[in-house]
Amino acid sequence: MQLAFGFHGSEAKVRDSFARQSLMATLGARIDEVRPGRVTITAPVGANALQQQGFGHAGLTFAIGDSAAGYAALSLMEDAAEVMTAEMKINLMAPAAGERLIAEGWVVRSGRRLVVVQARVLAETGADRVEVAILQGTMVTILP
Amino acid sequence: MQLAFGFHGSEAKVRDSFARQSLMATLGARIDEVRPGRVTITAPVGANALQQQGFGHAGLTFAIGDSAAGYAALSLMEDAAEVMTAEMKINLMAPAAGERLIAEGWVVRSGRRLVVVQARVLAETGADRVEVAILQGTMVTILP
Amino acid sequence: MQLAFGFHGSEAKVRDSFARQSLMATLGARIDEVRPGRVTITAPVGANALQQQGFGHAGLTFAIGDSAAGYAALSLMEDAAEVMTAEMKINLMAPAAGERLIAEGWVVRSGRRLVVVQARVLAETGADRVEVAILQGTMVTILP
Amino acid sequence: MQLAFGFHGSEAKVRDSFARQSLMATLGARIDEVRPGRVTITAPVGANALQQQGFGHAGLTFAIGDSAAGYAALSLMEDAAEVMTAEMKINLMAPAAGERLIAEGWVVRSGRRLVVVQARVLAETGADRVEVAILQGTMVTILP
Repeated sequence: MQLAFGFHGSEAKVRDSFARQSLMATLGARIDEVRPGRVTITAPVGANALQQQGFGHAGLTFAIGDSAAGYAALSLMEDAAEVMTAEMKINLMAPAAGERLIAEGWVVRSGRRLVVVQARVLAETGADRVEVAILQGTMVTILP
Repeated sequence: MQLAFGFHGSEAKVRDSFARQSLMATLGARIDEVRPGRVTITAPVGANALQQQGFGHAGLTFAIGDSAAGYAALSLMEDAAEVMTAEMKINLMAPAAGERLIAEGWVVRSGRRLVVVQARVLAETGADRVEVAILQGTMVTILP
Repeated sequence: MQLAFGFHGSEAKVRDSFARQSLMATLGARIDEVRPGRVTITAPVGANALQQQGFGHAGLTFAIGDSAAGYAALSLMEDAAEVMTAEMKINLMAPAAGERLIAEGWVVRSGRRLVVVQARVLAETGADRVEVAILQGTMVTILP
Repeated sequence: MQLAFGFHGSEAKVRDSFARQSLMATLGARIDEVRPGRVTITAPVGANALQQQGFGHAGLTFAIGDSAAGYAALSLMEDAAEVMTAEMKINLMAPAAGERLIAEGWVVRSGRRLVVVQARVLAETGADRVEVAILQGTMVTILP
């Protein structure tokens, strides 16, 4: 993408916002990389976040994918702005099996109000990584 | 929809499967109504499932909407079958603010392998209910 | 839905806009019912709009479903506004086989900038109607 | 992606199928590149495929994006197989303005029955190209 705004959103702003998301703490998620327009979040396939067959729940995969995409969008917004998900679509391609999940989110198109984003989620077991989901959606800029 | 299969899936099967989803317990979710092709799940807007502004996280709304839709699909499948989400799309229309969320999922089209589903999520505060999200997606029948 | 704006958009405005969509003429589509927040468009399963097996092309089904949803949104917008599709998701449930397709679009949530819409497309043969697709998406209000 | 099946689908099979899609002829679309898991389709922003403001209709953008993705899937299927779209999601990021549209579709995950695909559509004016849409969806393998 072309960065439309430059990197107004500081890394600290993104990390502070993430720290206020109690669901991320509940899921044991951690924000790793924060770059302009690109954010990575990891989470264990935790015993408290499974579906009926013992794999990571689609809600877990969605939650960290959506957050990675949302913070990628926030990283390009001006300082006073907040971000909310308008809509998000996820294709689940393999069971979320492994030690941990890695969600990478990035900005495809940054408009004034609407930011089109994508994300993908990988499941990691030892040195192996399998792509388990891809996401595509729209974030909204909320101005005060 | 036309019920293609009749109601093979027993209510007990759906409730047993739900009870094995540890994420639902983590979120304080409860499965309420289980009818052929229609399932309702409720969850508090709990302190452990918030986003950065104090509303319910999109991951919470998605998780119960997706589960309600998935169990609606499972309720129409034959006894030996399992269900998995192939893809799901959510439009978030209002902040998930209130005392609790109510997710209603239903089957739109039940094919042999693919089941098209929808769901909606309401936020309840006292006697007021606001529709906060709608979901549309595809469940896959997993046969042993 | 709750009509947030009343019915500013006149029926004439919607019909005039539809008449300027050359793709609709190419597909032989006709706008039928125009009510506040609800629009119906019909089109033949024409010889010029088929896929490789002789059914209506997914692009035909999408085009009239998207237009029905978009005009449902426009019907609730103020007079000066234009409408554009931000995103749309379609689930195709049966082949588009029959004499003609009927697309019904409606507004689920009408915000100031974003309008959440749904649509469904039926295939009609004689007196029989089969639901062949459902759509869910977001329209954007364009103000001059 | 990892090619799960090798390249059973011949280029000729894909081109023959495309030639039978009358909607593609109606839109003036042409299939360009056919590689295993990747297909490119181009179409003019033709006078017969516009929306009310004179841009290419979302139905045009969708039709060639969906076809590019579908033929990318077909290119990896065994000879006897047919392909149909189960569901597709499109984010429209800019008006389809320009001389022609270029749709690139590719396979993300090739399963036995379900193939997860993506596509993007560019608008070209002279030497300039603008990304106007991205698509993500699921194709189904139809076996005889």
